[in-house]
Amino acid sequence: MADYKIVLLKGDGIGPEIVNQAVKVLDKASEKFNFTVEYDEALLGGCAIDATGVPLPDETVAKCKAADSVLLGAVGGPKWDNQPGNNRPEAGLLGIRGALGLFANLRPAVIFEPLKKASPIKDEIIGGSLDIMIVRELTGGIYFGKRGRTEVDGQPAAWDTEQYSVPEVERIARVAFDLAMKRNKKLTSVDKANVLESSRLWRETVTRISKEYPEVELNYMYVDNCAMQLVRNPGQFDVIVTSNIFGDILSDEASMISGSIGMLASASLSESKSGLYEPIHGSAPDIAGLGIANPLATILSVAMMLRYSLDQPKAADAIEAAVTKVLENNRTPDIYEEGTNKVTCEQMGDLVCEAL
Amino acid sequence: MADYKIVLLKGDGIGPEIVNQAVKVLDKASEKFNFTVEYDEALLGGCAIDATGVPLPDETVAKCKAADSVLLGAVGGPKWDNQPGNNRPEAGLLGIRGALGLFANLRPAVIFEPLKKASPIKDEIIGGSLDIMIVRELTGGIYFGKRGRTEVDGQPAAWDTEQYSVPEVERIARVAFDLAMKRNKKLTSVDKANVLESSRLWRETVTRISKEYPEVELNYMYVDNCAMQLVRNPGQFDVIVTSNIFGDILSDEASMISGSIGMLASASLSESKSGLYEPIHGSAPDIAGLGIANPLATILSVAMMLRYSLDQPKAADAIEAAVTKVLENNRTPDIYEEGTNKVTCEQMGDLVCEAL
Ligand SMILES: CC(C)[C@H](C(=O)O)[C@@H](O)C(=O)O
Ligand SMILES: CC(C)[C@H](C(=O)O)[C@@H](O)C(=O)O
Repeated sequence: MADYKIVLLKGDGIGPEIVNQAVKVLDKASEKFNFTVEYDEALLGGCAIDATGVPLPDETVAKCKAADSVLLGAVGGPKWDNQPGNNRPEAGLLGIRGALGLFANLRPAVIFEPLKKASPIKDEIIGGSLDIMIVRELTGGIYFGKRGRTEVDGQPAAWDTEQYSVPEVERIARVAFDLAMKRNKKLTSVDKANVLESSRLWRETVTRISKEYPEVELNYMYVDNCAMQLVRNPGQFDVIVTSNIFGDILSDEASMISGSIGMLASASLSESKSGLYEPIHGSAPDIAGLGIANPLATILSVAMMLRYSLDQPKAADAIEAAVTKVLENNRTPDIYEEGTNKVTCEQMGDLVCEAL
Repeated sequence: MADYKIVLLKGDGIGPEIVNQAVKVLDKASEKFNFTVEYDEALLGGCAIDATGVPLPDETVAKCKAADSVLLGAVGGPKWDNQPGNNRPEAGLLGIRGALGLFANLRPAVIFEPLKKASPIKDEIIGGSLDIMIVRELTGGIYFGKRGRTEVDGQPAAWDTEQYSVPEVERIARVAFDLAMKRNKKLTSVDKANVLESSRLWRETVTRISKEYPEVELNYMYVDNCAMQLVRNPGQFDVIVTSNIFGDILSDEASMISGSIGMLASASLSESKSGLYEPIHGSAPDIAGLGIANPLATILSVAMMLRYSLDQPKAADAIEAAVTKVLENNRTPDIYEEGTNKVTCEQMGDLVCEAL
């Protein structure tokens, strides 16, 4: 019987509440599908700053490295807004991505059938369905490049470097092509190759790797155009692959277009099997501790973990089906609609366990 | 009687057709409001490559520098896609911005009353109205920074530099604050200050300049969040100020949200009075020469020119009013709706002249 070691990084704000519900669901799935899970906890973000002075203690990195996967709640909040840039909760997030080599961020933007009216986009355009997978490079580019202050003509200035090497682009391209092969075999590579040198290298490399995937229909799009096309006709996309910064912007835009931000999960993968899984929403300090947070994105992050890191695709499918079923009649306040039952964070966790 | 020298850069694709209609409207306005306009033409983009081998001939720069303002149609097309990066039509566009010091790009995203159903966003959200002014820094940042190829661990790599100096941020911030003062006194500065050093300098500088504008309500937003908020609730924005690359992405997203891309004008301003004015849409090679292009964005660019560079605000207002009036019953194919008259590019120009 498979036995998995999972590290929980509950984080800040609503993080602990939502992770607790996801753990309950994972335990239930482990009974049903015959595997066991051992948990350990570690600190990341604001809670780590409070306890240790830094957002990413060494102990957290060590524990995560030893685990089969990591489940993260959310980090950050106004309490730590006055920390210097390199000691903010966000620095912990960037730090753990770098330390674990999590170069591939998978961000599905999907519409759940019972929530199909939630998209801000008109029904004629969105047609109640959306299923985009955005593959964002996560440990390179301008978020990890050299940066600093300097002077220009005697005046203060500041700079950051967007840089990509061929192997960095190759490995993220392969992740995207592999995903496209399992989906609708369409891949859009997004860059700004009409201006940026790093984008030209990106495009050349993706083009070369595409030869290994003759079945995948590849097209290129400039980032400004992609930001428009996501609004104009999001249904045209299957898989999108792009750099760290463009992926940050476009994946957030796409998730808002789905209308279901409180529902969206994400996976951050490394060259090894182990990954980090987290909801895409933030730590929502305004509702932390009230017991009304929506745990479904975290529960769906567990499903992604089962699929991509733990080789339990059946358990993943079962959790996703349970969530869709529960959603028909039950809603946390953020997704509440007339005619459904309004439930708490904990009740939502219980309902998904029952439906499993 | 004021006499203005205007350079026309008709450019490629539909560029010549739409500029011709805009010239007709400007001539009509000059009769009505008692000024004269002299025109000169110069080459930019693909047509310049064909005629001279380069996208921005020196003669074009010289003519533009001597003019009171420049009206640009559109540049680019598949014909020049195989030109090397530094000799593409787009390089001409970046070149003229740099050569004329056009550091402030004003990109209004507005909904025209007769086209209020055109937005892809649901009516409950957009409420039929939108009036955002995006102020994009246009001659700095990563589009103008140093770039090159290098090696990382023996592997090819490529890099670009995002850099801003304090004076560069100060001057674009002042343009944005001045505009906010003339509008609803709300300014959103968009950056990625939780990660980028250049964004931290940007934010510090905007904060300092804000002291000169105590009446303007300033807030900050991360670029990923802004990409979401434009979809979730675009009505929250009045003026947005941001860097070259973020402005490129967000202004295109915002214009798609307006649903009226064929209608949107833009101004690129320098420290002097003279500016460059152009529609935000592209050269549409697929419909070039068919006489069915929509000239209204170019006509509205003329209105912006009259307002920002030529001190003829009444003529600007009159053109904008004429366009709104004509739109009630007349449409080019791109904005056609049942129950209106379908008109050609030239007819649309004539109708605006009549309405003036
Ligand atoms: C907090 C920030 C550094 C982070 C990022 O931009 O990578 C966040 O926006 C995200 O997308 O996970
Ligand atoms: C063609 C390109 C260089 C240009 C830019 O990104 O600046 C265009 O997208 C624009 O926004 O005017």
